[in-house]
Amino acid sequence: MKYFTVGPSELYPIVPSKIKQALKDGVLSISHRARIFDELFESTTNNLRTLLSVPKKHSIFFLSSGTEGMERIIQNMTKQKSFHLVNGAFAKKFYQMALQLKKEPLKIEVEYGASFDWKEISIPRSTELVCVTQNETSTGVAIDLKQIYMLKRKNPKVLFAVDVVSSIPYVDVDYTKVDAVFFSVQKGFGLPSGLGVLIVSPAAINKSLSLEKQGVSTGSYHSFASLKECADKFETPETPNVLDIYLLNKVIQDMLKKGIDVFREETELKAKLIETCVENNPKLEYLAKNKKHRSQTTHVILVQEGSESCIRMLQKNKYLVNGGYGSMKNDCIRIANFPAHSIEDLKKLAGFLSTI
Amino acid sequence: MKYFTVGPSELYPIVPSKIKQALKDGVLSISHRARIFDELFESTTNNLRTLLSVPKKHSIFFLSSGTEGMERIIQNMTKQKSFHLVNGAFAKKFYQMALQLKKEPLKIEVEYGASFDWKEISIPRSTELVCVTQNETSTGVAIDLKQIYMLKRKNPKVLFAVDVVSSIPYVDVDYTKVDAVFFSVQKGFGLPSGLGVLIVSPAAINKSLSLEKQGVSTGSYHSFASLKECADKFETPETPNVLDIYLLNKVIQDMLKKGIDVFREETELKAKLIETCVENNPKLEYLAKNKKHRSQTTHVILVQEGSESCIRMLQKNKYLVNGGYGSMKNDCIRIANFPAHSIEDLKKLAGFLSTI
Repeated sequence: MKYFTVGPSELYPIVPSKIKQALKDGVLSISHRARIFDELFESTTNNLRTLLSVPKKHSIFFLSSGTEGMERIIQNMTKQKSFHLVNGAFAKKFYQMALQLKKEPLKIEVEYGASFDWKEISIPRSTELVCVTQNETSTGVAIDLKQIYMLKRKNPKVLFAVDVVSSIPYVDVDYTKVDAVFFSVQKGFGLPSGLGVLIVSPAAINKSLSLEKQGVSTGSYHSFASLKECADKFETPETPNVLDIYLLNKVIQDMLKKGIDVFREETELKAKLIETCVENNPKLEYLAKNKKHRSQTTHVILVQEGSESCIRMLQKNKYLVNGGYGSMKNDCIRIANFPAHSIEDLKKLAGFLSTI
Repeated sequence: MKYFTVGPSELYPIVPSKIKQALKDGVLSISHRARIFDELFESTTNNLRTLLSVPKKHSIFFLSSGTEGMERIIQNMTKQKSFHLVNGAFAKKFYQMALQLKKEPLKIEVEYGASFDWKEISIPRSTELVCVTQNETSTGVAIDLKQIYMLKRKNPKVLFAVDVVSSIPYVDVDYTKVDAVFFSVQKGFGLPSGLGVLIVSPAAINKSLSLEKQGVSTGSYHSFASLKECADKFETPETPNVLDIYLLNKVIQDMLKKGIDVFREETELKAKLIETCVENNPKLEYLAKNKKHRSQTTHVILVQEGSESCIRMLQKNKYLVNGGYGSMKNDCIRIANFPAHSIEDLKKLAGFLSTI
């Protein structure tokens, strides 16, 4: 079976052999307080910094999921007022999390499949934190980073948090222009699930420290202060998912060898294949009507006859895709386009899709 | 190398082959919203229930670490007043976490290596939650569960949370007598790190729901309400560490075949081997002076000449143990005694240890 699901998804090709290597080398038994772990932490964060061009002053933290990323951002980067751009289920979750954490979030919401009218967005004066889901896994809508940077430029004192869970490492973020970026590894990095990564600016750290000074709880073992104190020693506060950190390092090393630009070009090439297939088939239609809003990495496609028979047909041919998210389950299919997916497989998948 | 470290530790023998099986079967790519995952969740929690005799009314939640267990218990089981029995670094961490989460914890503290005078313990009247570290990984002191049950009987309206991180599955908890029990899988279950388990009573769930009603934040995606809503559907709120849940199920199935009592007897037999070795060597001495307080699964031993040369000698012979925890690093060694450790290897380790 080839997994074109939006995450967990197809494993990055070297993962199985690297897992076997990890077993041989005893990686699964090493102590998270041993020097060998510190070296792994340092190497992984250094390589990630190189791959994604993360400035030295930014901190890289390991969490357990993208979802945890949302919680830690809300806890550490806002006392009360967060502002959420909601265009799908995951952006909504981010907003609801702020409510659950007893903040006072505001939101603007657009119809699923649509994006925002950026000229019309006005950030309320007291806003501390803006939360944006750059790539909505539920709708397949991607936001142009330039719009986010422009909004930040207009509101320079407001912190910006960006969810790139299902677009990284394709998406080329300028980390100097935002304050928190987070993702999980079971999507674009093609790894087993159970690890999240959070990259934060010095301003984000300062905000967290200032909240603590004001007596606001920023969490406990995963407060930015606790995470940073440990990360500065190449450690984590708790026993982390050591295997996933090891595998992430291996995958990044492989990506560095090939060059991130090659992956980014290939992603666009493969996206084109799916797009052409959809455009040529009257029974298929992108949920995102506006071509400019469509994600390259997460293709959410309305299927005229319903998604079920289409998913079944693809599965019979050994290609697994997702149904639509939540209430759109039976209306849409969702196809991932990650570095682990080969051009050849994408061509075959598009071929099968064109027969419905 | 044989890992007698206190966690991460030696892998349970079937783990390497089951990881390879998982790779073959595509377990690392399955969606956490697919039926196949729900079946895995249901099977794993059912088997864990059988192995540990967890009542049907208790909920089993998957977290990412034992440390997360502490945070979620504090958030969901106390509005303000927790009471902590502190006899080591991990019990202290539990207490400090309550402070960080802006509760008003109280504690009684004994010297590291000692245990409590149970007759003297009086729980303050307003206490909502008592936190006990049943097996202190930093000191090798274990608490007799009967003392905990007795304290609960004297304070029936107070909730009790018990850390069994490094004693499970040896420790035989009566889950009807406490309200929260938590552990991680990289110790007694011999698995890769990155998964925590939290078992809670209906009273614990009710407390969390009542806090929510009072407007107290119980966290977000890992509030008991959110965890329970998902667990009732055999799901997790976030994408979890699917591989570890799969492996936990395999290890539990293997333990069920052999019988948990056999493991418990073997643990005591192996503990006796280390104890005899220490008693016969004047250069070695348990940190816990009182024999009754010594952990069967975590042996913390003072080394007269300092721990460093002892650790090096054992390592040369392919046996890895830990140094002492924190400031005791150079004074002690710590030896784990988990189901993954064979009697034969423990005999060899004791043999080498007796030569110092």
